[in-house]
Amino acid sequence: SQFSNMQAQYGTVAVVMVGLPGRGKTYMAKKLCRYMKWLGIQSAVFNVADYRRDSAGAKQPTHFFDPENEEGESLRLQSAQKALDDMLDWFKVKNNMVGIYDAANTTRERRRWVYDRLKAANIQAFFIEVMCDQPHLINQHIKEQMVSSPDFKDMPPETVLEDFAVRIAHYQKRYEPLDIVYDKEWSFVKSVNVGENFIVNRGHGYIQSRMIYYIMNMHIAPRAIYITRHGESEYNVVGRIGGDSDLSGRGQQFAFKLSEFIKQQGPSDLKIWTSTLKRTMQTAGHLGGSQIRWKALDEIDAGVCDGMTYEEIQELYPAEFAARDEDKFNYRYPRGESYRDLVQRLEPVIMELERQSNVLVIGHQAVLRCILAYFMDRNSEELAYINVPLHTVVKITPIAYGCRWEEFPLPVPAVSTQREKPAHTHPQRTPQEALATVPPHS
Amino acid sequence: SQFSNMQAQYGTVAVVMVGLPGRGKTYMAKKLCRYMKWLGIQSAVFNVADYRRDSAGAKQPTHFFDPENEEGESLRLQSAQKALDDMLDWFKVKNNMVGIYDAANTTRERRRWVYDRLKAANIQAFFIEVMCDQPHLINQHIKEQMVSSPDFKDMPPETVLEDFAVRIAHYQKRYEPLDIVYDKEWSFVKSVNVGENFIVNRGHGYIQSRMIYYIMNMHIAPRAIYITRHGESEYNVVGRIGGDSDLSGRGQQFAFKLSEFIKQQGPSDLKIWTSTLKRTMQTAGHLGGSQIRWKALDEIDAGVCDGMTYEEIQELYPAEFAARDEDKFNYRYPRGESYRDLVQRLEPVIMELERQSNVLVIGHQAVLRCILAYFMDRNSEELAYINVPLHTVVKITPIAYGCRWEEFPLPVPAVSTQREKPAHTHPQRTPQEALATVPPHS
Ligand SMILES: Nc1ncnc2c1ncn2[C@@H]1O[C@H](COP(=O)(O)OP(=O)(O)OP(=O)(O)O)[C@@H](O)[C@H]1O
Ligand SMILES: Nc1ncnc2c1ncn2[C@@H]1O[C@H](COP(=O)(O)OP(=O)(O)OP(=O)(O)O)[C@@H](O)[C@H]1O
Ligand SMILES: [Mg+2]
Ligand SMILES: [Mg+2]
Repeated sequence: SQFSNMQAQYGTVAVVMVGLPGRGKTYMAKKLCRYMKWLGIQSAVFNVADYRRDSAGAKQPTHFFDPENEEGESLRLQSAQKALDDMLDWFKVKNNMVGIYDAANTTRERRRWVYDRLKAANIQAFFIEVMCDQPHLINQHIKEQMVSSPDFKDMPPETVLEDFAVRIAHYQKRYEPLDIVYDKEWSFVKSVNVGENFIVNRGHGYIQSRMIYYIMNMHIAPRAIYITRHGESEYNVVGRIGGDSDLSGRGQQFAFKLSEFIKQQGPSDLKIWTSTLKRTMQTAGHLGGSQIRWKALDEIDAGVCDGMTYEEIQELYPAEFAARDEDKFNYRYPRGESYRDLVQRLEPVIMELERQSNVLVIGHQAVLRCILAYFMDRNSEELAYINVPLHTVVKITPIAYGCRWEEFPLPVPAVSTQREKPAHTHPQRTPQEALATVPPHS
Repeated sequence: SQFSNMQAQYGTVAVVMVGLPGRGKTYMAKKLCRYMKWLGIQSAVFNVADYRRDSAGAKQPTHFFDPENEEGESLRLQSAQKALDDMLDWFKVKNNMVGIYDAANTTRERRRWVYDRLKAANIQAFFIEVMCDQPHLINQHIKEQMVSSPDFKDMPPETVLEDFAVRIAHYQKRYEPLDIVYDKEWSFVKSVNVGENFIVNRGHGYIQSRMIYYIMNMHIAPRAIYITRHGESEYNVVGRIGGDSDLSGRGQQFAFKLSEFIKQQGPSDLKIWTSTLKRTMQTAGHLGGSQIRWKALDEIDAGVCDGMTYEEIQELYPAEFAARDEDKFNYRYPRGESYRDLVQRLEPVIMELERQSNVLVIGHQAVLRCILAYFMDRNSEELAYINVPLHTVVKITPIAYGCRWEEFPLPVPAVSTQREKPAHTHPQRTPQEALATVPPHS
């Protein structure tokens, strides 16, 4: 595959986060990690605060973070070392590509130490500094943290705000931001006030360049992404995959219900994206507005199996059918696509979703599995089996470090097209075994 | 199509270049324009120096550029106005999206004037500053300019260098670079020392974000891109399109000759890219090295016509066949792709080619037409008819503001697969008329 070769060619990258408390380092670290993994690039976050909480316990008093406090300082240094050691060990595993070291790293001395250890292990260091000097952004961040951080569990909000302010002050005393002159030999990107401006230094390398583009396109304004499959199609009813059939009568009813749902629930600035296939465009038929047709949203190409039922595939290509069940994510239909191929094809769609505000995506089963896996951080084995029922709108809302998933089934019946992984996936299985999980169809 | 909708959604963008003479403004302006046009975004460059040469003549003495010289200053101002007027007129034409205003614009006063005029016309301004403080880069640029600029035609090199130094000094006196604090309301990107670092301010908007990513990935180190189709395939011999057939005997010979050619001519660090189809992988069979398989390099998907001869397409789908001949770039095969779709699919390949050094791309006729059109700045009508003969290596070398094209036919005979646009493209044409330009096959 494209990426397994690229791994060999592009080498490993250690991302080193930099920034004061509550600036969004952990948010960005987790999000980058999710994006990389979705792209097929093995990635993991090493969060020093988690190590610190493991060894010293959460809910430390604020003077724990005072650099003058020797005991606190030493415990925090131990956590920093332990996390870095673990990351270096992690890099020794084949195909582990992007390790993200999530800590404040606000002093030059600390960064130099991290850099030297990475260099000794022959790993490229890429610094990502998250800066923010707008009080309203910082307060918003801190409030979100109260809800999610174990450090402040069950504490009254006023105490948290005070605590946090003192903690920030401790770090601020010694804060030395990355500098385009002083740090000119290092590879880094500095993000200021969530997208206001960026400074990029020596951001070469394939992975760095992808990460920079991603960081530059993301935003944190609240919004929702609505995701639905087309209404039931004529092919769905008879259990055929692929094709370019029209909606069934029930599918047309869904198209109508969808427009009512969106009128009631949808934000007024909602953008509508469909694929270029008839069934998604027909599903958007009552929605109006300026719609975008993405070829990249077209259903997975089943190649020689396009238009067949599972029964026909089993009859004509039993070995192929078994191979697909054995490793659905990597299996490529002869002359068609795999889920892995789909992820590559959908990458520009994901990037554009990151940039946009409210969007409704009307797509197809396999394509939406890939998109949902991105937002919900599902790995590639899970991805290919995510249940995306017909006539159901999924609403994805970014919250804290992840996304919320809500389902709105609209009241129009439809067939099921979810075929679970069968118990037997070996090429010698019987037709009954192969077809055991095929959903009923006419 | 995706982009015609995006045009409506994303509005027009005026790129305003900023920088001292010889920094690469014109180079970047032309290159950005070529990339935008290739993506299907109407774009044009308005170069103030061309207007100045038109009105005052090329080869002006250096004191012409002295801001104290009133006559020179007034003539240069007139050119700046005329170019901006023309750009504003150009924006009035429907679908014209990205105008690039190529001038020094080194003072705040001048930039404010440009900005205000754009704002009055409701056009977003996006500044691109090209900075360079490395004497060896500047001298290299100036030397390249000597060869290409009409201002220095037939002048002895020493005089040019002197002339240029004085001209730069005139501008330097009043140079006010874009500043992240002073200019914080404006949208801009500053590129320093060709990729060393970048400052991006408010680079929001779809088009801006694409341009920034592109600028961050390009480099000016010398290199070559080698492009060839797979060797003759079994389908080529019998005049069938698409499919996934093996190489013919002659195709296998070509694979061998190709490896000899690359051994002799190819740079030692050459990277090899193929599609995922058998005929390109077999063509790379003697080349060794770590190769990358790109699904994005697979041949255009002919949908329902995949595997047919042109005679069969004419017989089964005469109206489709005529529609394709009428507008080959936009025509999408039923259940397949258009050339326009291909360009979208190939965009990541182009971006990666920009980042890379020496690469050999082993591809397919339609896919390589798109890639060659990008490098050679061919418009979409020309693109679909570019002749990419079998058993021929094309070497593309970036030079000055464009690319050089060299052809190396290797001595192994092959069929021709180039079908020129026929004289008749109306749906009522006769089969003879439809098939008039089909190349001979067995
Ligand atoms: N790009 C961003 N910049 C700043 N804050 C962000 C950004 N993105 C998200 N946030 C919000 O800020 C909140 C706090 O951010 P986060 O926990 O990531 O900070 P942190 O820098 O890791 O802090 P700490 O040093 O305490 O671990 C998060 O809840 C998140 O929603
Ligand atoms: N990104 C770059 N930065 C600087 N120089 C470049 C860059 N890319 C290319 N060059 C080289 O520099 C040479 C001079 O650049 P160019 O003519 O574009 O300068 P300019 O800024 O337009 O100068 P002028 O103000 O005289 O029009 C070109 O021949 C080009 O090859
Ligand atoms: Mg954190
Ligand atoms: Mg110029």
